[in-house]
Amino acid sequence: MIGICSIETFIPKGRLSNFERKDRFDVNDDFIINKLGIYRVSRKDPEDDTSGLCCRVYDRLMQQTAPFDPQTIDVIAVCTQNPDYSLPHTAAIVHGKLGLPETCATFDISLGCSGYVYGLAILESFMKASNFKNGLLFTADPYSKIIDPEDKSTSLLFGDAASVTLVGENPIFKSGKFSFGTRGGGYPFLINRHGKLHMNGREIFNFSARKVPEDIEKVLALNRLSLDQIDLFLLHQGSKYIIDFIVKRLGIPPEKAPFVVKDFGNTVSSSIPIMLKDVLSDAHIKRIAMSGFGVGLSWASGVLVRP
Amino acid sequence: MIGICSIETFIPKGRLSNFERKDRFDVNDDFIINKLGIYRVSRKDPEDDTSGLCCRVYDRLMQQTAPFDPQTIDVIAVCTQNPDYSLPHTAAIVHGKLGLPETCATFDISLGCSGYVYGLAILESFMKASNFKNGLLFTADPYSKIIDPEDKSTSLLFGDAASVTLVGENPIFKSGKFSFGTRGGGYPFLINRHGKLHMNGREIFNFSARKVPEDIEKVLALNRLSLDQIDLFLLHQGSKYIIDFIVKRLGIPPEKAPFVVKDFGNTVSSSIPIMLKDVLSDAHIKRIAMSGFGVGLSWASGVLVRP
Repeated sequence: MIGICSIETFIPKGRLSNFERKDRFDVNDDFIINKLGIYRVSRKDPEDDTSGLCCRVYDRLMQQTAPFDPQTIDVIAVCTQNPDYSLPHTAAIVHGKLGLPETCATFDISLGCSGYVYGLAILESFMKASNFKNGLLFTADPYSKIIDPEDKSTSLLFGDAASVTLVGENPIFKSGKFSFGTRGGGYPFLINRHGKLHMNGREIFNFSARKVPEDIEKVLALNRLSLDQIDLFLLHQGSKYIIDFIVKRLGIPPEKAPFVVKDFGNTVSSSIPIMLKDVLSDAHIKRIAMSGFGVGLSWASGVLVRP
Repeated sequence: MIGICSIETFIPKGRLSNFERKDRFDVNDDFIINKLGIYRVSRKDPEDDTSGLCCRVYDRLMQQTAPFDPQTIDVIAVCTQNPDYSLPHTAAIVHGKLGLPETCATFDISLGCSGYVYGLAILESFMKASNFKNGLLFTADPYSKIIDPEDKSTSLLFGDAASVTLVGENPIFKSGKFSFGTRGGGYPFLINRHGKLHMNGREIFNFSARKVPEDIEKVLALNRLSLDQIDLFLLHQGSKYIIDFIVKRLGIPPEKAPFVVKDFGNTVSSSIPIMLKDVLSDAHIKRIAMSGFGVGLSWASGVLVRP
């Protein structure tokens, strides 16, 4: 049995304050505090590229899990839509920088906010098929590379971060069944055109508000679980407003679906692992439902259970 | 049991003649005929983007396999490093254009010449884990989007194409075990810097000449097969020179490892499915070994067996 053995994350120290930019963007405190829920957004050092963020979380993982022999890593997958280069894949660059063995498989997955849930499903199934023992799933999607600083709808929202999840034997959490979905007709609502990110916030909100509660109920049914059997809901941290809405729609206690990103923002595919890392050692959390949703439009939900 | 049920391909009609460009690039007939082995390279219509190439092969597949209900497609994966946009993923755009159901999972895999073998392994394992019945693997990596027409080392070599493979039940070929590898330290040898493709042909050749024969022997051992039990070797069509070299190194009959791309060039992740399509109905071909290698540096080998 394989599953999640450990997680490390990196949120760059650089910050842009949303309160300091409220006049420029004509927004008020209520909007920042109660709608966005994001007070500051994280910004990476310009010298750190996507592969560099992956190396940072890898270093933290190695410190945490020592002794861990890098020669035993069978596969690394990087989930990003802001790679170092369109080619080669960022996982190869990370592989080279870390000096991993030539027997290590590497590939990139191009997905946004649904990427962690998809990435876990893809990596775990790939590992099982080849009987691999140790795999690393990286998320690193630094939107600061494509954000127009003058664009209120994205500049106040997205923060940079990265994560790495060690998937291996004797896991802390193992995955249940997953649910996936796509509404490709909505692809223009969150898009990088000519190097600049564009978002139609209203469309993304409307889609998420309707689709995510439905998908969480679907994935729970697939796993024969009910809402009240779930100890924690890890919802992609799109904004405070969307989390509040989903919580109400599902009728779950707000404390079971935390919103934790006021100090760094929506970190795309890193938002779920950032929360998950903090509960790995909390034995009270036995069953988790998670859901990622956004660019694509794409969504994915899953269940994690402490074996 | 799932596996390869059908394949369709698309090679755009546009062509650039290498003979007509030999003076400009200071190459002779011997180089074009015996080293490259590529007389003309295919070029897509500028109006066709990557998602458009995918739609073209999909239309051909639907004509071939009719009646096939698009509502039964559980997942589509697009392998490309030249997507329509860095975000969203191209599979979502294809999903939207084709009007596929919302229950369809979609993701992109970023890999180059090793992408078909990896893609098949990733998609098949993903489908098995979720008990999916029908999946489509697209390859579409139109290098013409990033080729400098004045760069002899790439402009004479790469052609545009796309493929789609229907993975489902009652397959014509099923996969055996796979082998994967990465030499990330070599990532600068084939790279898109600032929108232009750069290749160090000598390094790519040296890497492929050494690594691919070794990996084919490794994957055959994994599948308990010997070289003489293989009816056909489908080697990524890098150039005639590299195919000739691998054939000699392995000591296999040249007719078992065809080189078929003189009229359109090296089509990256589409080169293996273009050859595979033509032997699906050839009952004499019972066991196939395939190997993709290149950008990353990355390689992947696999075995296909007629059930």
